[in-house]
Amino acid sequence: MSVDFNTVATEFCNFYYQQFDSDRTQLGNLYRDQSMLTFETSQLQGAKDIVEKLVSLPFSKVSHRVSTLDAQPASPNGDILVMVTGELLIDEEQNAQRYSQVFHLIPDGSSYYVFNDIFRLNYS
Amino acid sequence: MSVDFNTVATEFCNFYYQQFDSDRTQLGNLYRDQSMLTFETSQLQGAKDIVEKLVSLPFSKVSHRVSTLDAQPASPNGDILVMVTGELLIDEEQNAQRYSQVFHLIPDGSSYYVFNDIFRLNYS
Repeated sequence: MSVDFNTVATEFCNFYYQQFDSDRTQLGNLYRDQSMLTFETSQLQGAKDIVEKLVSLPFSKVSHRVSTLDAQPASPNGDILVMVTGELLIDEEQNAQRYSQVFHLIPDGSSYYVFNDIFRLNYS
Repeated sequence: MSVDFNTVATEFCNFYYQQFDSDRTQLGNLYRDQSMLTFETSQLQGAKDIVEKLVSLPFSKVSHRVSTLDAQPASPNGDILVMVTGELLIDEEQNAQRYSQVFHLIPDGSSYYVFNDIFRLNYS
């Protein structure tokens, strides 16, 4: 049974941000050795380096709120492209920061991993 | 001679936004029949429908200003993923609107076409 790409994208992002906000040390399962992360001006490759970067971010409490989520099929092999815009609430700060993020998901058996991940805060 | 993906991404976006801002009826050359555009809540497929949508947008004068541009290789075949955040100045409005956009570029001979295009305004 093939699953709709919008459903996959939504379920992936729900899981990803829930995991990020509760325990981001566990995000490594979603990346592979060839995966890439651009986080602001940092560029990382491989699950190990990517998770080290995410874990090292200078906040302990974080909460993602998704504002828009748009997905498209990205290849004949079932790849999915997702663009998210949303808000990030960090530690005890009152003002959320807006962000944009894109994920390129590649099917892997019954699941998907993140091949490309680009994250940027949106400063006004 | 292989060209760096960052250079391709930057040159593509320069060309794309310059063309968009000067004469968006000509953007069709950058899309193919299988190309997809998500523009806010609209979803289009194919160069013809995509350009019709872009041309129908309710403004005559528009100017894109890129704030951040990040690129990554997206496949072993030379695909490139680009995420742009920037500002849009429309007609005689004084206040720019922030936007996020992602392009998935696929090599085609010595050039590239847009396979995926997702555009969203960032409301605060």
